[in-house]
Amino acid sequence: MPPVVIAGSGRLSRMTPEEFRTAGHRLIDWIADYRLSMEQRPVRPSIDPGQVKAAMASEPGEPSVDVEPLLAFMDSVVVPGSTMVQHPMHYGWFPSNAGLASVLGDIASSGLGSLGISWESGPALTEVEEVVTDWLRKLVGLSDRWSSTIHDTASTSCLVALILARERASGNSYADRGLAGLDEAPVVYCTDHSHSSVRKAALLAGYGSDNVRIVAHDRRDFSMDVADLRAAIEADAADGRRPAAVVATIGTTGTTAVDPLAEIVAVAAEDGLWVHVDAAMAGSVMILPDHRHLWAGVEDADSITWNPHKWLGTILDTSIFHIRNTEFLIQVMSTNPSYLQSGADGTVTQYRDWGIPLGRRFRALKILFHLSIDGVGALQARLRRDLDNARWLAEQIEAAPDWQVVAPVVLQTVCVVHHPRGADSAGADDDLDVLNRHTLAWVEAINRSGEAYLTPTMLDGRWVARVSIGVETTEREHVARLWGLMKNAVSAS
Amino acid sequence: MPPVVIAGSGRLSRMTPEEFRTAGHRLIDWIADYRLSMEQRPVRPSIDPGQVKAAMASEPGEPSVDVEPLLAFMDSVVVPGSTMVQHPMHYGWFPSNAGLASVLGDIASSGLGSLGISWESGPALTEVEEVVTDWLRKLVGLSDRWSSTIHDTASTSCLVALILARERASGNSYADRGLAGLDEAPVVYCTDHSHSSVRKAALLAGYGSDNVRIVAHDRRDFSMDVADLRAAIEADAADGRRPAAVVATIGTTGTTAVDPLAEIVAVAAEDGLWVHVDAAMAGSVMILPDHRHLWAGVEDADSITWNPHKWLGTILDTSIFHIRNTEFLIQVMSTNPSYLQSGADGTVTQYRDWGIPLGRRFRALKILFHLSIDGVGALQARLRRDLDNARWLAEQIEAAPDWQVVAPVVLQTVCVVHHPRGADSAGADDDLDVLNRHTLAWVEAINRSGEAYLTPTMLDGRWVARVSIGVETTEREHVARLWGLMKNAVSAS
Repeated sequence: MPPVVIAGSGRLSRMTPEEFRTAGHRLIDWIADYRLSMEQRPVRPSIDPGQVKAAMASEPGEPSVDVEPLLAFMDSVVVPGSTMVQHPMHYGWFPSNAGLASVLGDIASSGLGSLGISWESGPALTEVEEVVTDWLRKLVGLSDRWSSTIHDTASTSCLVALILARERASGNSYADRGLAGLDEAPVVYCTDHSHSSVRKAALLAGYGSDNVRIVAHDRRDFSMDVADLRAAIEADAADGRRPAAVVATIGTTGTTAVDPLAEIVAVAAEDGLWVHVDAAMAGSVMILPDHRHLWAGVEDADSITWNPHKWLGTILDTSIFHIRNTEFLIQVMSTNPSYLQSGADGTVTQYRDWGIPLGRRFRALKILFHLSIDGVGALQARLRRDLDNARWLAEQIEAAPDWQVVAPVVLQTVCVVHHPRGADSAGADDDLDVLNRHTLAWVEAINRSGEAYLTPTMLDGRWVARVSIGVETTEREHVARLWGLMKNAVSAS
Repeated sequence: MPPVVIAGSGRLSRMTPEEFRTAGHRLIDWIADYRLSMEQRPVRPSIDPGQVKAAMASEPGEPSVDVEPLLAFMDSVVVPGSTMVQHPMHYGWFPSNAGLASVLGDIASSGLGSLGISWESGPALTEVEEVVTDWLRKLVGLSDRWSSTIHDTASTSCLVALILARERASGNSYADRGLAGLDEAPVVYCTDHSHSSVRKAALLAGYGSDNVRIVAHDRRDFSMDVADLRAAIEADAADGRRPAAVVATIGTTGTTAVDPLAEIVAVAAEDGLWVHVDAAMAGSVMILPDHRHLWAGVEDADSITWNPHKWLGTILDTSIFHIRNTEFLIQVMSTNPSYLQSGADGTVTQYRDWGIPLGRRFRALKILFHLSIDGVGALQARLRRDLDNARWLAEQIEAAPDWQVVAPVVLQTVCVVHHPRGADSAGADDDLDVLNRHTLAWVEAINRSGEAYLTPTMLDGRWVARVSIGVETTEREHVARLWGLMKNAVSAS
């Protein structure tokens, strides 16, 4: 297996700032044009597995400082191979808005080329992150008991939280014998509607599948059943296990269900469980003070994560992690090798001790630019628009024969089924298979058309269509158009 | 504690593509000018803890679509608050090159605003990552037994590797009882010269501090003592523990020491230990075929990480993870909730099952643009330049009275002490304190001057100055200037 050695025989120098200037202007125009042309593109181009790979050579070609061949590749391969999550007719998963103001901040960060491995390596990188994450803390209405940082995703935040919970429950086993030395296995509690990253984080943190307890949920609103949580905790304790953490979700992935946080923190407090609040989706809505009742009780949780890179629109990867006990966080996550020590230690924040990676980008600039250019008022107005649109769509659906909204519309997501044999067939178990096939078929028909995109989800054994509203550019007219597509699709299916 | 509610009363709309175009052009010029002016700036501006924070308001100001106030903030606060790791006189830590060709790719990624949570959400994002990481695999001379992905940092790669090792050693305890159900505690082996992230990863993965075994190292070249590794493994097995993983470092942080990988994989094979190769720094040099002897034996390791975002120059965060047994990786790391299932499953790569976060950016574009614009030949030439510069500096130091190179110069890092009382005092133990204070003083004098920056490190109990060469723009003249500064600094100290 002789390795391929590619010895570039052409250009032998790196890109200079002047060459970057020329290419950069061209790229900015390409991005602006791309965003302007978005609505004329299919939301989800027709693309087969392997098609992009097949369009690429098995090794890099001859280098060229001309950016045009790369932009041609973007146009001919990358864009036609991309699902347009910035498209106003995109209703899949959750919004993943990459607001252009935040994109500017991202570009500034790239241009600076900063390195965050210590305060010393990036004083501004560190302190701007402290300030802008504190802005966000205030914007979502949290008290100053909370400190904040940026992680890449809520999955990582959850892993950090469950490691902290594990260490609190095990009396800091990391500092000596580790988990294998424990008599009582620590246990994590969540529901079937918690995000898949909760179970994943628990397994990565070493809890083991037997110690991830799935608590019952309400069959109508899909929220955690606190009586069952309490019973499960008691049963585990009686069984010689160590209840360690509850993950409460504010805005589940399936239906944006809201676990009853105030009750959960009360139950958790009785046995000293860590409460991690996964508000990845719903955190953004807390910039609207009249929605903060959704996470009432949050001040008594131990950690919170929410993703401005979803609905709020600060480009990925911008996941916020709020924590109360930073001393414990740093104790568990810290490293302090000699080469990173400096005279500033002890007086500054060392974000390397707040998460998994040592090195970090200057991600705070994305938030700074986003809030400074778009501003909070515009963000609040946009979120209210999306809430209104979701309510409007739900009303249309409820008023239409044979259609059914199958979960409370708490935020901007509408879960819906259409009954091909009429709405009164809804209860018949023998029709479930027919219903599932019908749902998947009409959703697939819309997606295949490229006119709109939505993702089905399994809700307590039944496939449902899920309309997730909240792309920056999605206005009422787009939602109305989607509703028309839905009605057409079910009659064609 | 009433939360501050900021209700922006000014602008109420988000940035449009045309506004982005205008601001983006201005920002590109700012970046080009910033990079051009780099050499006229102090490498490390004088900055006190809290100074950046003090320059920022406690909440966002009135929004404005004009980017000038933000650029003014960059000029007046961010830049003077930043350590210039792209500066040609920066010799601290390891190089953290943000090559402008890769910055362009990063900008393209931001502009696209793609979302990688499944192949379906980003076919091009997924497949371009497969292709360009495979280019990198070939460039560093690895066989096609290896599959590849991008993680944020080598710290994360190490955590993934140690979780995999834990699961292999524990017979997949994640799938049932978890670590607390184990009779034999799994053990990790590394040396005092391994990166701090190895120990951190082991603690986060639940091994416990008692089960992180520090193997002896050679006192002259700081490489792992394989006889001691073998003895430690035998002792742990006899003691009822389960040897699980060895982390072999190719290019340690302190001195770029190289652990004897061929011998390590042979010892590890006897007891089925996972071998993770931390080549975060040295991986880049493997694009020079005549340096691949440094990791001879690598084909028999289980996982490898290296950071193009260091010496190679693809902007942070671009850490490559190569793995042989992808089936096992996916088994341990996978999640497959209903809302992420699609018809393409089974025929495509789902990178969410290769690491910790669910969502990923289109980081592959950074590599694509970097290799396509700068090209491999230029990268190879630059690395050879840096190797030459390090050898040249070491020769100057060795030829100078009272100066000493204290570790083999394997790559581009030169570890050095100056003996204030003459080189023949080197062995006197009672002089260690004087020597340490002298070293820290003259390094600090250089750093304070803003003329150059280097980071001291503790090497087996002694502080040494560490000159890490390899910034993109560092030419021989810069290294010669540093040598002049060093000679001046010791006479002033």
